[in-house]
Amino acid sequence: MDDKRFSERYEAYRAAVEAYLDRLFTADTPWKTLYDAMRYSVLSGGKRIRPVLTLECARICGRKNWRDALPFACALELVHTYSLIHDDLPCMDNDALRRGKPTNHVVYGETMATLAGDALQPEAFRLIAEAPKMTKTAKLDAVWSLAWASGANGMVAGQVLDLTDYGHDRETLTALCDKKTCFMMKAAAELGCAAAGASPERTAALARYASLLGLAFQIRDDMLDVVGDEATFGKPIGSDAGEGKTTFADLLGTDGCAGEVRRLTDEAVAALDGIEDSAFLTELARRLAERDK
Amino acid sequence: MDDKRFSERYEAYRAAVEAYLDRLFTADTPWKTLYDAMRYSVLSGGKRIRPVLTLECARICGRKNWRDALPFACALELVHTYSLIHDDLPCMDNDALRRGKPTNHVVYGETMATLAGDALQPEAFRLIAEAPKMTKTAKLDAVWSLAWASGANGMVAGQVLDLTDYGHDRETLTALCDKKTCFMMKAAAELGCAAAGASPERTAALARYASLLGLAFQIRDDMLDVVGDEATFGKPIGSDAGEGKTTFADLLGTDGCAGEVRRLTDEAVAALDGIEDSAFLTELARRLAERDK
Repeated sequence: MDDKRFSERYEAYRAAVEAYLDRLFTADTPWKTLYDAMRYSVLSGGKRIRPVLTLECARICGRKNWRDALPFACALELVHTYSLIHDDLPCMDNDALRRGKPTNHVVYGETMATLAGDALQPEAFRLIAEAPKMTKTAKLDAVWSLAWASGANGMVAGQVLDLTDYGHDRETLTALCDKKTCFMMKAAAELGCAAAGASPERTAALARYASLLGLAFQIRDDMLDVVGDEATFGKPIGSDAGEGKTTFADLLGTDGCAGEVRRLTDEAVAALDGIEDSAFLTELARRLAERDK
Repeated sequence: MDDKRFSERYEAYRAAVEAYLDRLFTADTPWKTLYDAMRYSVLSGGKRIRPVLTLECARICGRKNWRDALPFACALELVHTYSLIHDDLPCMDNDALRRGKPTNHVVYGETMATLAGDALQPEAFRLIAEAPKMTKTAKLDAVWSLAWASGANGMVAGQVLDLTDYGHDRETLTALCDKKTCFMMKAAAELGCAAAGASPERTAALARYASLLGLAFQIRDDMLDVVGDEATFGKPIGSDAGEGKTTFADLLGTDGCAGEVRRLTDEAVAALDGIEDSAFLTELARRLAERDK
């Protein structure tokens, strides 16, 4: 797929996601501060990889109008956003900056940041339940995928493993990353498949693609934390080492990381074998493997 | 309904809820600390009023085996439990004791308490999605009710209003209590109705009953905080005044509170008019109105 067509489609998805999210939590209520805190993080940009994955999976699995899948795509993004807000809290990673902006609790205080994250979770499930164009089966599949991915055996388990320094060798670090990052990437693909009523086989293939993409993404991230350009990468180089956590760069070296990212990307692309119209996903995998930011 | 029959049924519900909850989060995983923290609060007792409401509503709306509704009832209890864990956090009410036991963050630390609460939310929606005996319609109705009640226009909004001292007169304090307490009581009834496929009219009547019960419950609570017996009530008398928040006792006086509890209880019971087999719910309302703890 050429540059222009890829970028146009990515941008169409991204813009639709931004517009959908921008319509949420706008009413003038006595608890407007909560809405403001939620919107601050929900609308703070980012690549929107997960909702883009959802929308593209919905499209290639046969959903004629991919916009129908926006409630599912944005539901997952709300859960992703809550996880970032809570991860940044003083009792977690205690980060003051994210994507170059002050973190939620720095702006709104710890109490409101906790509550904003808390509220984003049920709101995500509400979006799924209220999705206007979706069948009951699609909605329930989406609820289940999102709940599983973000729950006590998914993303939160990954965060616990991360905070307890579980990932000290390649096997444990991969298991940690699987929970913390890959589960939600996988769910992003599954939500798109659910929106299109895709077969279990196609859903499994796209989930596998997304999961491998997630692992490649994390390894690239660890590598950029060592060899990246601070201005491009958008966060201080060497911050992982400063936290004393084992990263893939520690275990594999930067060359080893580069090789592993290539291998996982090839594997992700191979998972798309037999899936029609997958050029965008192939290109997405290639681009993420080469990203500098 | 006589004492014995009421107590027997309440105890059957309560025991079934405890047994169901006790089977959750027991696997031996590398993130077992998270499970332990979740179980600590999930199994810390309490009256289990909300799940009892769900099960009884399911039964009187025609669900032959009320046990089928246990996943719905316990899902709501998980969300209630998360809200208690987060409410107790240092950045919220900073409470060291709940029901006479150290709060979650006192035992497991602030980080794990935050994560335990975070994980309980998606796990609740997972229980609903996986409920074995429920139709898709029932599950989706349950997801929607629970998401709405616990979200940015429900319980979390109530918590924000509470923390920002919104409830300074009768109208605002009632609005606050509606969000913070009544919404989840209402959802408890709705989940039972969903489990039984009850008509919209019956669901509305039982939701109204539950909502009035919630308000009466809160007013009784404020009153017991002034005139209660510390040993019976289970928390220090006068703790509300110490927090500088306006309570119903401040606004109505204790006699006024007693009258209002009676009035709301009568109204709740009146909402049951025309609903067959509602003796247990009538008795429940009467007992909650007279409770000393």
